[in-house]
Amino acid sequence: MRIDVFFGYQQLTPADVTGRVVAVVDVLRASTTIAAALANGARAVVPFLTSDDAVAQSKQLGREAVLLAGEQKMLPIPGFDLGNSPGEFTPERVQGKTILLTTTNGSGAVLAAQGARDIVVASYVNFSAVAAMLRAAVRSETEVVILCSGHERRFTLEDAGCAGRYVRAIQKDLNGVATNDGATACALIDRKYGENIAKLLQDSNHGQALIGAGFGDDVGFCATLDSFSVVPVYHDRQIVPLGTSRL
Amino acid sequence: MRIDVFFGYQQLTPADVTGRVVAVVDVLRASTTIAAALANGARAVVPFLTSDDAVAQSKQLGREAVLLAGEQKMLPIPGFDLGNSPGEFTPERVQGKTILLTTTNGSGAVLAAQGARDIVVASYVNFSAVAAMLRAAVRSETEVVILCSGHERRFTLEDAGCAGRYVRAIQKDLNGVATNDGATACALIDRKYGENIAKLLQDSNHGQALIGAGFGDDVGFCATLDSFSVVPVYHDRQIVPLGTSRL
Repeated sequence: MRIDVFFGYQQLTPADVTGRVVAVVDVLRASTTIAAALANGARAVVPFLTSDDAVAQSKQLGREAVLLAGEQKMLPIPGFDLGNSPGEFTPERVQGKTILLTTTNGSGAVLAAQGARDIVVASYVNFSAVAAMLRAAVRSETEVVILCSGHERRFTLEDAGCAGRYVRAIQKDLNGVATNDGATACALIDRKYGENIAKLLQDSNHGQALIGAGFGDDVGFCATLDSFSVVPVYHDRQIVPLGTSRL
Repeated sequence: MRIDVFFGYQQLTPADVTGRVVAVVDVLRASTTIAAALANGARAVVPFLTSDDAVAQSKQLGREAVLLAGEQKMLPIPGFDLGNSPGEFTPERVQGKTILLTTTNGSGAVLAAQGARDIVVASYVNFSAVAAMLRAAVRSETEVVILCSGHERRFTLEDAGCAGRYVRAIQKDLNGVATNDGATACALIDRKYGENIAKLLQDSNHGQALIGAGFGDDVGFCATLDSFSVVPVYHDRQIVPLGTSRL
């Protein structure tokens, strides 16, 4: 039984993910937005590295068939339907829609994890649901990787803390779960902040930047535990709720 | 006033280091070995990424003029004079010698930091001496970067914990020192282990591997605080004690 935490997808090699379940964490804000969108009825979220790629795809699918969403340097993208604020992804807006989401760090991490046995998108807002799935994987001797997306190639406190909460939940009552140093460090961070997830996010550089840019409500949204029970899985180039992926 | 901690040198850009003082940390074992060698009278340590490069340089300088030292996958390199065990670098062996040191992670980090205002090599064994130098830099408004070498492109607990000890020493009694998320996380790790540095190193993946390979004494050596007061600085392609670098 094994859990590894890696920081940043740029260093990931195929050997790091092959045959494993990979949980991608981008707490502020892509992971949280994806959970909110799917829990509120979006049919799928398709991740893109750049807005140009998303726009090109929207033209192929038909502009009316999709919602263009995402951010560039925290701000909504001109001409897009939605930003990257999870609170925007209400049932009224997203029910039945396919969302083309541009978000550099989270999208890069999901795409870098291709080749994994399963890829799930993890955050605080769907913590217990995803933790149960990862715990089942570890118990059945499938190795788990938690991939912290980070921000502009850098380690982020909020992704590490969230990863640590998953590590601790998976280890609980299980003996002999091997971890790498990243997992050990993340568990320490989660233990330090405990239930005060809001404080963790407020202490993080990106949380402070979002609050400074007027996105304080988003930070609060992302710090809320178990708002949703959706397990978003990446399959065939799109992210869908677990249970609908292999119809 | 600012301290940033970065994990891994592969992601470092010139903008990350230009005009800053960069402290390179590779606790197990290169930073510790370099401190021991210089404190025990070596004239200089020249870092190399590969043993072939070190051997080529030894031929240029004359094989008798130098000591070849270093490791490949923890083990001494055939034909070399010394491994990478800091305890080998006694005054009897190293006094007055130039040491050509092959050690992938530590050498890579030092070379990646070129362009910095100053590059120092930091570890536990010369903690207080290096911390005083970094603290003076921060007080004089020079930004400090602590670069954790990591191991085979990965985050390592021992480098992060050591970096955290430096962060906390620099911040002490100083208000308004800005930090990145890496520095915040490292400070948490150091606070958690406190004075039990041996436990931190034993908990780390690389510490466990070294102990398993029979290098337990090295791990103990690397966990000892303030054995030396040397400040190793990288200047003109070699590492020398501060005070002798600009003669």
